[in-house]
Amino acid sequence: MRATLMYGAGDVRVEDVPDPRITEPADAVVRVPQSCICGSDLWPYGSVPASGHGSRMGHEFLGVVEDTGPDVPGLRRGDLVIAPFVWSDGTCGFCREGLRTSCRHGGPWGGDLDGGQGEAVWVPQAPGTLVKIPARADEALLPSVLTLSDVFCTGHHAAVTARVSPRTKLTVIGDGAVGLCAVLAARCLGAERIILVGRHKDRTDLGREFGAADVVAERGAEGIELVRELTGGDGTQAVLECVGTTDAIATSLGVTRDGGTVSRVGAPQYTEVPMDFGTFMGNITLTGGVAPARAYIPELLPGVLDGSLQPGRVFDRTIGLDQTPDGYRAMADRRALKVLIRP
Amino acid sequence: MRATLMYGAGDVRVEDVPDPRITEPADAVVRVPQSCICGSDLWPYGSVPASGHGSRMGHEFLGVVEDTGPDVPGLRRGDLVIAPFVWSDGTCGFCREGLRTSCRHGGPWGGDLDGGQGEAVWVPQAPGTLVKIPARADEALLPSVLTLSDVFCTGHHAAVTARVSPRTKLTVIGDGAVGLCAVLAARCLGAERIILVGRHKDRTDLGREFGAADVVAERGAEGIELVRELTGGDGTQAVLECVGTTDAIATSLGVTRDGGTVSRVGAPQYTEVPMDFGTFMGNITLTGGVAPARAYIPELLPGVLDGSLQPGRVFDRTIGLDQTPDGYRAMADRRALKVLIRP
Repeated sequence: MRATLMYGAGDVRVEDVPDPRITEPADAVVRVPQSCICGSDLWPYGSVPASGHGSRMGHEFLGVVEDTGPDVPGLRRGDLVIAPFVWSDGTCGFCREGLRTSCRHGGPWGGDLDGGQGEAVWVPQAPGTLVKIPARADEALLPSVLTLSDVFCTGHHAAVTARVSPRTKLTVIGDGAVGLCAVLAARCLGAERIILVGRHKDRTDLGREFGAADVVAERGAEGIELVRELTGGDGTQAVLECVGTTDAIATSLGVTRDGGTVSRVGAPQYTEVPMDFGTFMGNITLTGGVAPARAYIPELLPGVLDGSLQPGRVFDRTIGLDQTPDGYRAMADRRALKVLIRP
Repeated sequence: MRATLMYGAGDVRVEDVPDPRITEPADAVVRVPQSCICGSDLWPYGSVPASGHGSRMGHEFLGVVEDTGPDVPGLRRGDLVIAPFVWSDGTCGFCREGLRTSCRHGGPWGGDLDGGQGEAVWVPQAPGTLVKIPARADEALLPSVLTLSDVFCTGHHAAVTARVSPRTKLTVIGDGAVGLCAVLAARCLGAERIILVGRHKDRTDLGREFGAADVVAERGAEGIELVRELTGGDGTQAVLECVGTTDAIATSLGVTRDGGTVSRVGAPQYTEVPMDFGTFMGNITLTGGVAPARAYIPELLPGVLDGSLQPGRVFDRTIGLDQTPDGYRAMADRRALKVLIRP
């Protein structure tokens, strides 16, 4: 089959790789009708050292079941499924607590294993991992369903861990697909007021449609000052950090009201966080982390399937599998917000 | 009156200073029957640059009301009161939320104002700040009452913000007075199991009496390994960081179970925290901060007054006001755990 591999920064190729096959009783093999490129794929795309050994890419995908092992009772050939971006057994202590990303028998897609940016994927722990979509699902809704594999669940995780509720005023840092999904998720949780910090007008316009009342285009100290002005000087109780850089964390801490919470869901490009004496005196909490997407899919899927939630609007370009290298370039150059792949 | 001033690292003096007096309608003046030295006083004692201008010291004290302004209706001369370590109006938005340390009209004792380590103290915002103790209070209980001004409330804040409950296994980092109070507070909240990390046997012995089931005397990587061994490799759901150093924060993060929470209440001697990619993947939360002691006093006072809670056991030396410089030395040299002053 054909699949996407990354050989180094800026070097993405689509090549022939071995077809996936069942090796364990709980395995499945799925054909991929839709997958996509993640903002987090851009970090290695910008920096990973060149290697003669390509890494398989992609961790967000829908699947159509091709084959299953004997211990996958709930799925049959032809079923449409969502795969969250970490596989998990669904039965260990962490999984039962909902922390699917810490599953004792789980792991990530890609690397030396199949990734979502290919024609098909070997799925371990299929009963715990895959979520079946009703056969009646409208084709037009599928991009929104696809966002449940990562990006919408990641935005939702930010809002949930920051305890967004109908009384919450919050700030979302970042107008990438995660930030926009965080706006949508916060709106769904009833947030009283959402301030979106982002400087790409086409993206923040979608953020407004998703529920942001205010947009702050300035960055750094100026952006902090403007958010504080919008909030009587105090900042907001919840801040959803959807970028992953040191600057984004600093801005987040700078706009958090005393006693408030920063939830970080941007994959960290930093190793330290300035949780200094000031944040101590302000009783600021830093929470969030990698989203246990699998745990959120059941609660978010109905709103997506009935069309009331349309996180799939973050996709602004659709390509075939062979165009994946162009898709990476378009996202890296900020010519595309998020790229959908139809292998 | 006589009061304690710090002129630089290692330079604490007891000198004559002006008597406090009422200047605003909501002021009170209290005589100090008991105060104490805080672990946080040791940070400037170890490092503050020498100055010809002494800083008034002390932020934990009991008071006997001497005088009040016209807007202090609930207190009269002779009343015994506790002063929390930050004064607050009790009426602003933050105070109403319980975040007394962020009061819009509050502030700290000491510096250029009166401190607790003196014969008397000028108390601003007295109606919001002071808590009256019943006249029948047993003299022997007063050291435990005194701990409500800071150290016991600080330990309690760590336990509360880490959401310690009857199902919680937790680790307390640090066997100073705050760490020991955190053990006691966690036990009161019903914690299932408490591991205390500390290397001073006399202190950890008191920690065991306060409720610690296990003591780990090793530090750094070895200490982390031992806590993990005690918890099946996972670490604990809650970790109460009661020191304030970079090492203590690193140890705390190292013994936190995935999905768990570090609550920091040790006054930070660091400016950055290693909340790196690993803590992101583990969904680790960092919370805590300066304890809004005033908000906790009403709930903790009954247990102290009926003798069921004895946080005052952290005091292992009592001195007169003129011996305050010796008290600082004793605590800095680890010859005393916590020093009570009777001015």
